[in-house]
Amino acid sequence: MVTELERRIRRRLDSLTKPQGSLGRLEELALQVGLIQGTDMPSVGRKAMLLFCADHGVVEEGVSPFPQEVTRQMVANFRAGGAAITVLCRQYGIEPVIVDMGVGKPTRNFAREPAMSRAEAEQAIEAGRAHATDGDLLGAGEMGIGNSTTAAALLCAFTGIDPREAAGRGTGLDDAGVTRKADVIAGALALHRTGHLDAIGILAALGGFEIAAIVGLILGAAQKRRVVVLDGFISCSAALVVRALEPAALDCVVYSHRSAERGHRKMLESLNAQPLFDLDMRLGEGTGAAIGISTIEAAVRLYREMATFESAAVSTGPDSTDVVTPPASRSGAAP
Amino acid sequence: MVTELERRIRRRLDSLTKPQGSLGRLEELALQVGLIQGTDMPSVGRKAMLLFCADHGVVEEGVSPFPQEVTRQMVANFRAGGAAITVLCRQYGIEPVIVDMGVGKPTRNFAREPAMSRAEAEQAIEAGRAHATDGDLLGAGEMGIGNSTTAAALLCAFTGIDPREAAGRGTGLDDAGVTRKADVIAGALALHRTGHLDAIGILAALGGFEIAAIVGLILGAAQKRRVVVLDGFISCSAALVVRALEPAALDCVVYSHRSAERGHRKMLESLNAQPLFDLDMRLGEGTGAAIGISTIEAAVRLYREMATFESAAVSTGPDSTDVVTPPASRSGAAP
Repeated sequence: MVTELERRIRRRLDSLTKPQGSLGRLEELALQVGLIQGTDMPSVGRKAMLLFCADHGVVEEGVSPFPQEVTRQMVANFRAGGAAITVLCRQYGIEPVIVDMGVGKPTRNFAREPAMSRAEAEQAIEAGRAHATDGDLLGAGEMGIGNSTTAAALLCAFTGIDPREAAGRGTGLDDAGVTRKADVIAGALALHRTGHLDAIGILAALGGFEIAAIVGLILGAAQKRRVVVLDGFISCSAALVVRALEPAALDCVVYSHRSAERGHRKMLESLNAQPLFDLDMRLGEGTGAAIGISTIEAAVRLYREMATFESAAVSTGPDSTDVVTPPASRSGAAP
Repeated sequence: MVTELERRIRRRLDSLTKPQGSLGRLEELALQVGLIQGTDMPSVGRKAMLLFCADHGVVEEGVSPFPQEVTRQMVANFRAGGAAITVLCRQYGIEPVIVDMGVGKPTRNFAREPAMSRAEAEQAIEAGRAHATDGDLLGAGEMGIGNSTTAAALLCAFTGIDPREAAGRGTGLDDAGVTRKADVIAGALALHRTGHLDAIGILAALGGFEIAAIVGLILGAAQKRRVVVLDGFISCSAALVVRALEPAALDCVVYSHRSAERGHRKMLESLNAQPLFDLDMRLGEGTGAAIGISTIEAAVRLYREMATFESAAVSTGPDSTDVVTPPASRSGAAP
């Protein structure tokens, strides 16, 4: 159903000095932001990148080529401004917000027992929800050695796809490592009998504190009418949980990019998501989301700042009264 | 052949605090800019958007739904900052440089006679070349009612594809208009016997002053070791001319996006170009190139500003001596 607000936004888009529809997905983005914010004059406001950081018990299984201490080291790198995401935040004027969700205090090893209790999962969701007012455009970033295994496990549990299709190289596993990762996930799905669990149950069994926080961020943003820009494989795994809990909340989500991480394509397909771009990135942290925020800013600024045909006194196309009739039309041929 | 410079740049890329290769095309972009600039510490420098504006005699044939006066009106809109490209230039800190290549002084109608003389074509190329020092990252933008017909004609003449595959909707032609546009092009290809012409001859017969200027911009940029960021269908048609004149000059070119204009996919394929993104845009002006410049800036800043594993004291992967050996490896299984 097309609302009156959508009609107003589309009317303005068509009045701007450009051929109708010629800004493509940028027009759809401006519309989406307007609908989320509930206004025909959407704004960029404050741009924030939430960097939820947490450790994962499952790294005991040898699923990452990097040691667990790298999570803590990368948080220090975030603070010092030397990480990829902090460079991009500087460029795009995005405030990085580092949130320690359990660095050095990993979840339990889900290959042996549930990663967390239901209460812990719900607590992490609430912690993330509290950050939904940190900005108007909210990037969903993360850091956590081992979390591509966690995200792949969630993908399997929520969509039923085979662990061998969900497990990817993460930070750089070799073929044997990827096989092992898939085996660990297959074992965990059987151990926790995830087919019998509800969404919070699956999140508690297999999830991570940073992923639970992104679930909360999305739920909170939907409530507060803020835009959440998801990043890659880890960040989007939270959307699977949200879809099971409160699917309408995903209206506030923009999917920034398709990651090169193996399972991301299937994850996006399952979410019926068309990401904005594909630069073959697979770094995480929110790096794709940062570029996505800049793209949304472009869409909103174009919508707000472009002149209209009327204000700029530019002649319009064939519907206009002041169009010069081309010779061909005079003889009735075209266009 | 991998040069010593390329080796140095790749070595630095691999030393930055991220899994190797995980920035995908942004790493390739940083490398390309380094190779163009001839340094292992490439820089963004001054960002400029060249807006070459010109009118086209072929609009007499009724190939555009917009009247010719819109070219002049849009130039005024550029100056006032109300056009899409000027909004994007403000956002990304790009200086717009408006260059009048023949607004109100159209080329001749190529359906009846050559659009310009060889001397005029060469003069327009030299005019464009003079702008290669306007910045370090140079966007190739344009404005000219009728120029999607010109670009489609060049595509046919340089690649041999059928006018019906090259002619698209431009600013919004209907089906009958597109058919007419293809017929006009087919007629012109026969009239000028383009199969017998050299590159300058084709450009003179079918081209536009703004497209010739972009040819010159690329040739000049290659000489001065500057980066040229091409936009969509019109902007990229200049690359076809450059390929015929001096193919090595295309090393300085970045293809920003795939436009929704019909012939652009084939044009990019013919150029063996992999554009950075596809947002279904078809506005021209340099709008895709502006987003491309911002993407290149991201690539260069990441390359320059990210910490290294050593400087940030972050543990590296499996090749590192300080990696924590996962339990699985201890028993010889993986990874």
